[in-house]
Amino acid sequence: MSLLVVGTVAFDGLETPFGIRGRILGGSATYIGISAGYFVDRINLVSVVGEDFPQAHIDLLNAHNVHTEGLQVIKGQKTFFWKGKYHLDMNSRDTLETQLNVLEHFDPIIPESYMDCQYLMLGNLVPAIQMRVLEQLPNRPKLVVLDTMNLWMDAALEDLKKVLTKVDVLTINDEEARQLSGEHNLVQAAKKIQGMGPKTLIIKKGEHGALLFGADGNIFFAPALPLAEVLDPTGAGDTFAGGFMGYLAQTDDISFDNMKRALMYAATMASFCVEKFGPERLEHISAEEMAARRAQFTQLSHVQA
Amino acid sequence: MSLLVVGTVAFDGLETPFGIRGRILGGSATYIGISAGYFVDRINLVSVVGEDFPQAHIDLLNAHNVHTEGLQVIKGQKTFFWKGKYHLDMNSRDTLETQLNVLEHFDPIIPESYMDCQYLMLGNLVPAIQMRVLEQLPNRPKLVVLDTMNLWMDAALEDLKKVLTKVDVLTINDEEARQLSGEHNLVQAAKKIQGMGPKTLIIKKGEHGALLFGADGNIFFAPALPLAEVLDPTGAGDTFAGGFMGYLAQTDDISFDNMKRALMYAATMASFCVEKFGPERLEHISAEEMAARRAQFTQLSHVQA
Repeated sequence: MSLLVVGTVAFDGLETPFGIRGRILGGSATYIGISAGYFVDRINLVSVVGEDFPQAHIDLLNAHNVHTEGLQVIKGQKTFFWKGKYHLDMNSRDTLETQLNVLEHFDPIIPESYMDCQYLMLGNLVPAIQMRVLEQLPNRPKLVVLDTMNLWMDAALEDLKKVLTKVDVLTINDEEARQLSGEHNLVQAAKKIQGMGPKTLIIKKGEHGALLFGADGNIFFAPALPLAEVLDPTGAGDTFAGGFMGYLAQTDDISFDNMKRALMYAATMASFCVEKFGPERLEHISAEEMAARRAQFTQLSHVQA
Repeated sequence: MSLLVVGTVAFDGLETPFGIRGRILGGSATYIGISAGYFVDRINLVSVVGEDFPQAHIDLLNAHNVHTEGLQVIKGQKTFFWKGKYHLDMNSRDTLETQLNVLEHFDPIIPESYMDCQYLMLGNLVPAIQMRVLEQLPNRPKLVVLDTMNLWMDAALEDLKKVLTKVDVLTINDEEARQLSGEHNLVQAAKKIQGMGPKTLIIKKGEHGALLFGADGNIFFAPALPLAEVLDPTGAGDTFAGGFMGYLAQTDDISFDNMKRALMYAATMASFCVEKFGPERLEHISAEEMAARRAQFTQLSHVQA
C-alpha cells in the first residue's frame, strides 16, 4: 500500500560517550524512510535539502526503496544541520547547534504521482508544514501517523493542536506526553491526548520500551531489547516510527492487534539503529538478522502459559 | 514446598504526594510474606519487633499464611521505624528518619520447625545477618533468593559480596545494579553481578518493569502495568519478590521458563501494592481480582504471531 513520508533530511553532528561524527546523514524522514524500506518496496519521500547535499546520500535513500521525486533540492542554499551531544546515560541530550537553512522556507509540494496516498507518516517537523501536507491530499489517507517533539509544544502549540485533530496516531516520548497533557501519570496523559484528536497514541520510553494506547482503553507494551552496547540513540524514535508504519503498510491492516505486531517490528528496527552511529547500522540488515532479532523480542516477552 | 522468609517487620512513616501515614505496618518481610501468602499456605517468618508491636499486626500476618513462631518480640525495646518521603515522580524518595531499635542487635534464630527449608527468601537486611541465616540451615535450600539495597553497598560491601557467593538469585533495582557492578549498561552490569555468585539476576525498574537474567545469557522482561493512580510505591519491590518466590514455591519448579511465569505474578502482585498506602491493598485481593489482573498482564504483553 502506498506510503508517503514527510519530514526532514539533514546533516547531523553527533557527540556520544563513544565517539564523534561531524556531518553525517540524518533527519526524521531519512530514518523513517530507510526503516520502512525494509517492509515496503516504495516509500514516497517529501522533504528538502540544499545543493550541498551529496548525490551519494540520495543514492543511499533510493537503494532503500525511498523514492526522491518529492525531495526538493534548493540551489544556493544549505541543508538543515543539527548538532547534539548525549550524556553518559544516553537518555538525555543537549542541542549544541541548529541551522535551519532550507527548512526555514520549506513548502512541502507533493508530486502528482504521490497523491494516491493510503498511509501517511508525518515525521517531526513544524506543525504548520505537517498541516500543509494534509491539505494537499485529495483523499484522506487510510491512516495518518504524526510524530512531533517538545520544541513545537513550546513554539507552536496552537498549530500543533490543530494538526492533532487531523491524525489517527500520535507518537511522542514520555516527557513530551507529560508536557502536552499537563499530566504526570502516563495513563492519564494518554487519555487527555487521545481527547485532542489521535485515537491511538504511542508513547516512546527509549530503553524502557513503548506503550500503545488504543481507542477503547486497550494498552499494549513493547519492550526495548537490552543491548550490551548502545553507541548512538540518534534516530531511534524515527526508526521506530518507520518500522511501525512500514509494517502496517505492508500488511494493510490497521486493527489494534496488527498495531501490536507493528510495534514489535518498530522496536526491532530501533534496536538495530542504536548499535552504530547515525543510520549506519540500518543500511545493512539482512533478512536473517531481521528474523533473528525479531525472535529475540519474542523470547524477551513471551511466557508459556 | 516450605518457604522461609527473613527480613524486617517494621513501622513505616510515609509521605507521598497523595497522602501521609504516621506509623503503619511495614518492613521487607511483611510485604514479602503477605504477597507470598497468596501462593502458598505456610510462610515461615524470621524477624524481630519490639514490645510496642500490636497483636493486631501479628494477627494480620497469620491471617495471610505467615507463621510467626520465628518472630522475636523483644521486651523493653521498640520496633524498627523508617520514615520516607516520595517525590512527585514516585521514582525517587528521601529517607527522613531511621530508628534501628530492635534491629541493632538482631540475631536471627531459626526455630526447629523451620529447619526443613526448601525455598529461602532473604529480604533486605544487614548482609551479615542474611549470612547468619544461611549458616544455621542444616541443608542447603533448593533455591536461595536475596534482596538488598544501596545502603549495604555503601556500608557493608565486603559482607554483601560474601553472602552473594551463597545465593542463587539476587533481586535489586537498576541503580543498585549499576552501583554494585560499576557498569552503567544493564546487560554488562548483569554479567558482572552474575560473576559475583548469583546465577540468576532480577533487575527491578519500578514503573518500567523488571528484567530477568538467566544463567545461560537468556533475558526475559516483565512489564509493569500502566496504572492511572499510584498512591504509594512503598513495599512494591518486596511484594514483587514475594510473588516471585511464592509462585516458585507453589509450583516447585525453578527452571528459567517457570521463573518467567513467576515474574509475571511478581509484577501482578506489585501492581496491587502501589494502589493503596502500605500493605493495605495486599490485605484484600480476591481470587477473581488476581485472575483478572494477571490477564491484564497477558493482554499488555502478548502478541499473536
